Amino acid sequence: MSATIATVGERALIARLHRRVPPPPEHVRLGIGDDAALIAPATGRQMVVTTDVLVEDIHFRRHRTPCDAIGWKALAVNLSDLASMGADPTGSLLSLVLPDDLTLDAFDQLIDGYLALARATSTPLIGGNISRSPGPLVVDVTAIGEVLGRRALRRVGARPGDALYVTGQLGAAAAGLALLEQGAARETLDADARACIERHERPEPRLKLGRIASRTGTASAAMDLSDGLADAARQLAEAAGLGVIIEAAALPCHPGAAALAAARGESAAAFALSAAEDYELAFVVPGRRTYRFEAAARRDRNVPVTRVGRFTAEPGARVEWPDGSITELPRGFAHF
Amino acid sequence: MSATIATVGERALIARLHRRVPPPPEHVRLGIGDDAALIAPATGRQMVVTTDVLVEDIHFRRHRTPCDAIGWKALAVNLSDLASMGADPTGSLLSLVLPDDLTLDAFDQLIDGYLALARATSTPLIGGNISRSPGPLVVDVTAIGEVLGRRALRRVGARPGDALYVTGQLGAAAAGLALLEQGAARETLDADARACIERHERPEPRLKLGRIASRTGTASAAMDLSDGLADAARQLAEAAGLGVIIEAAALPCHPGAAALAAARGESAAAFALSAAEDYELAFVVPGRRTYRFEAAARRDRNVPVTRVGRFTAEPGARVEWPDGSITELPRGFAHF
Repeated sequence: MSATIATVGERALIARLHRRVPPPPEHVRLGIGDDAALIAPATGRQMVVTTDVLVEDIHFRRHRTPCDAIGWKALAVNLSDLASMGADPTGSLLSLVLPDDLTLDAFDQLIDGYLALARATSTPLIGGNISRSPGPLVVDVTAIGEVLGRRALRRVGARPGDALYVTGQLGAAAAGLALLEQGAARETLDADARACIERHERPEPRLKLGRIASRTGTASAAMDLSDGLADAARQLAEAAGLGVIIEAAALPCHPGAAALAAARGESAAAFALSAAEDYELAFVVPGRRTYRFEAAARRDRNVPVTRVGRFTAEPGARVEWPDGSITELPRGFAHF
Repeated sequence: MSATIATVGERALIARLHRRVPPPPEHVRLGIGDDAALIAPATGRQMVVTTDVLVEDIHFRRHRTPCDAIGWKALAVNLSDLASMGADPTGSLLSLVLPDDLTLDAFDQLIDGYLALARATSTPLIGGNISRSPGPLVVDVTAIGEVLGRRALRRVGARPGDALYVTGQLGAAAAGLALLEQGAARETLDADARACIERHERPEPRLKLGRIASRTGTASAAMDLSDGLADAARQLAEAAGLGVIIEAAALPCHPGAAALAAARGESAAAFALSAAEDYELAFVVPGRRTYRFEAAARRDRNVPVTRVGRFTAEPGARVEWPDGSITELPRGFAHF
């Protein structure tokens, strides 16, 4: 049994964390240990800042989730927001609110999961804060990035006729969560199902595709799919005062999600539309740029992009099913 | 009885918050409502970022604290970190983790308290996040600022013989907290005691003095007194590999704190040394610059600065009492 964090002080915990953090890169002029951190921005670039939180029993169950995955995901959901703006990460702040019964082993694992993604994405941890919690474990992260001023991918920007693209495969994270809630034993699951749980626990921010879309100037708007594709499509349309229509047959549904939907007697496409937390990206691409966008996107060999719909001057968010019927797009996932 | 936040959705709450936020200034290129916010940094300046949190039942009691004070203080403790670096605030992110029983009235008051300090300090609220809490109210803030690169006031910088200055008066916040914990009825208290409670609930970040010390180049290091003067003096000394000696007779103790200390049979100076959460600043000033520093500091007519000690080549953190005796400086306040 590992000792709990209540047996050491705040400063000992910060020192314990600090020992695990590699030295920051050159643009970080001052990292962990002072009143604030300092970053030297590159000339001509704008700062991109975002914050998102994981709360125990709201976003995860502590005793069902590997602690390294909690740390990983807390950073990932923030980096996904930077990716959706086309930004390069330059640093992050980690604010931990820790219950007294958290073990030091769990603390170390959480930090190591966070730092594993920080390393993989060149996102130095430059500051933060540790407090006690009288209840849930709360992991609140601020991610900081940079983007060329006019190349930031906002939500506003779609025009009638523009295409809607998504990255990766949809529905995996929601399927993984459903499998965990059913109490599925991981070792009894097939590879697709295990991949769904992995996606739920360790989503991969699509920084490379966001950067490609921003730098090539081929996308005119973007957002991430934290609340699902139906929600993102609706928001991208409404931000531009447009409508949107999604082709169900085009949706790239993850095979594990398709299997789960089939077992429930649902269509894979309906599942993929509403499924939240994949942290894939949605891009708006003008018709004359789709060829260049697709060619540029192939530079990320690991993650495909798929054209799944188009924006319309006529308002409304709709989906066209394989039988030719058209229905209203389902409302997105609501966290609250 | 006001409705609770559980009766409205996350997006309705964000819209409710958004309606209270004034339009951002020109340097904020994109504020609330997208995946992330965008700031255009001024040429030659470094970005300063910090995060700090207020947690119910750890840092405040919800049913004893005016909700606007919770919002005010959550921003204030972050701006104090920017002040201690000599930075100008350029924006803030507000991450709220809200229990279902929080009323909409309380939500509005919290936001209004936050925005009142945001307005007073020209710190636009540019983004954030709202989540549910299964337990405590958590208000996590990230403050963003800018400082001329070589003018940032770090903790490291003291040299032997340098003077230690503090801003304002010490002990007020700790005295205010003690009065609240004794169950004192506010309306029965004298003006000094009420001022102590006000300082505990609505600390004032010393942005103006931080900026003066940075711009005039008269201070060589600084930090804020979130954990008290004894702690700050020790940390400024240790960061530079030095010792420090504080003159108890010089300490500017708040009259309300002095009265509380006297009622307990303690010395006002001992109380002021260990008292936390005043959010005043400690500055390190080389001997040849003390005259210029004091002259420049008079530009803030509301807050005095007081020389309270000096750094020594000999290690150790000590206090010299009026009777000439010298003792070790008490260990600082530990939040954890």
